[in-house]
Amino acid sequence: MTPYLAPPVNPELDLVLEREVDVPPHLVWRAWTRPEQLKQWFCPKPWLTSHCEIDLRPGGIFRTVMRGPNGEEADNTGCWLEVVEHERLVFTGLMSPGFRPVNIPAAVPVFTCILTFEPAGKGTRYRAHVMHRDAVAKTTHEAMGFHGGWGAALDQLVAMIKG
Amino acid sequence: MTPYLAPPVNPELDLVLEREVDVPPHLVWRAWTRPEQLKQWFCPKPWLTSHCEIDLRPGGIFRTVMRGPNGEEADNTGCWLEVVEHERLVFTGLMSPGFRPVNIPAAVPVFTCILTFEPAGKGTRYRAHVMHRDAVAKTTHEAMGFHGGWGAALDQLVAMIKG
Repeated sequence: MTPYLAPPVNPELDLVLEREVDVPPHLVWRAWTRPEQLKQWFCPKPWLTSHCEIDLRPGGIFRTVMRGPNGEEADNTGCWLEVVEHERLVFTGLMSPGFRPVNIPAAVPVFTCILTFEPAGKGTRYRAHVMHRDAVAKTTHEAMGFHGGWGAALDQLVAMIKG
Repeated sequence: MTPYLAPPVNPELDLVLEREVDVPPHLVWRAWTRPEQLKQWFCPKPWLTSHCEIDLRPGGIFRTVMRGPNGEEADNTGCWLEVVEHERLVFTGLMSPGFRPVNIPAAVPVFTCILTFEPAGKGTRYRAHVMHRDAVAKTTHEAMGFHGGWGAALDQLVAMIKG
């Protein structure tokens, strides 16, 4: 029994990517928590992650800067909410480091993400549960290519570990 | 050295109540974390707290229902972010249980609160650091009577412990 809260999926507000991958949980964990690793897989190509900061504790910074093929930049600064080694990571864009609320325009599909890495044979049952503040944000995020994008990033993560 | 993040105060966004009280940290902690105690002091009279739910873990519910003298009700559901026994409590109204983002109208002065209870002689240095998402929310909360209200509630907390 885990003491952690796993909220049920609300199909109106949430997006979920769940897949088994054939690399073990502790390597998936490393790929998510070490900036030099995360930068290698976090953005589906041709975008890349030009910068990453991780202070892995509740309230600690989680910042990524993503750069597009035409020089566009997306700078996201959020914080970690839960850190359970090799098992579970929760982060959000609603708050900056120290749990400080961020003033986010209504049009931005900000979210909280609960990542779980469950052992499955020699691999991992990988799950990303992404919760939005309203149905429009969920739909926007989906239309931006959530499933394709997060799926491609996961492929890159697995390839990095193997390669 | 605490491993916890204490963000600096931003005077444009934050409100702070800091006071020494002559009751020890572990009793202040109990007053904040046991619903039957919290209900006795949380609202400055003539308002009262008609309901309180506390699931004291990160992501766990923190709900209070406050009732005014004319039957008005204010129902606030948020969650805890950090729970460090007798020392530190962090909670927010930006998220509901399980860290789920809440869709809060721009006019509502939602916040994250960092409470610290530091030993000071036989008493406690009590500090509430309340962080808002924008300057309007801070000003609105201040105009709603933050200092008087949180101060009166603290007086009631101390009186409850002593009496």
